[in-house]
Amino acid sequence: MARSPKGAHAPALCGKFHRASELIGRRWTGAILFVLMETTPCRFATLRAAIPDITDRMLSERLHELEQEAIVERTVVPETPVRVEYALTRKGRELAGAIDAIGAWARRWMDVDALPAPKPAAARKRPGAARNPS
Amino acid sequence: MARSPKGAHAPALCGKFHRASELIGRRWTGAILFVLMETTPCRFATLRAAIPDITDRMLSERLHELEQEAIVERTVVPETPVRVEYALTRKGRELAGAIDAIGAWARRWMDVDALPAPKPAAARKRPGAARNPS
Repeated sequence: MARSPKGAHAPALCGKFHRASELIGRRWTGAILFVLMETTPCRFATLRAAIPDITDRMLSERLHELEQEAIVERTVVPETPVRVEYALTRKGRELAGAIDAIGAWARRWMDVDALPAPKPAAARKRPGAARNPS
Repeated sequence: MARSPKGAHAPALCGKFHRASELIGRRWTGAILFVLMETTPCRFATLRAAIPDITDRMLSERLHELEQEAIVERTVVPETPVRVEYALTRKGRELAGAIDAIGAWARRWMDVDALPAPKPAAARKRPGAARNPS
């Protein structure tokens, strides 16, 4: 991006950019989008297992916000028990470029040990559970 | 991005991605980065004027966080009065891809009227101030 000479113009924030960055930057929302990019549709419990430290309440709230913004679509599958799935809409899938760009930057610049490691469901040891040789 | 068949694997959140998205997604941080991409180095007052509704305190806090993360560099220019400038580091400039991707998505999908219009400094009229013909 070109560097502007000082004082050549007054910089202005793009309102649409601001709204988008505040929306997708909300706490946990980036993480939810990352997991949905990888696996869509995705069940609530799968999302929760993939995101360390998120609470049921926070995950519900964020998914509801993303539904309101038409980024995520919620589908109730009439089985017993009822299955609820979350999928990215077209608007949501088109965030892939932004998510990928943040990911590329993060791999280059973020420290490894700054966060607790994610806890994918498959990595949790349960007594009596089948062992995963990986 | 490829859609994974349901149940083929447990999705896992990338810890580096999560940390990056929580960092750059913090309230106002995206806006600050957007303005610094456009104009760097940039004075505190210029940043504040470009970002509607941000307070001095919040802008200071966010700039300090970005300095701590080595995304922004603060320089004191020994003039009278002292001039303080903020510039993106290399780490910060490399966020251009992410900022651009969010901007492209926002232009396509965000409503125009969802935010108050930005208030660039040049648009503010002050009695006796030199007029900027742009």
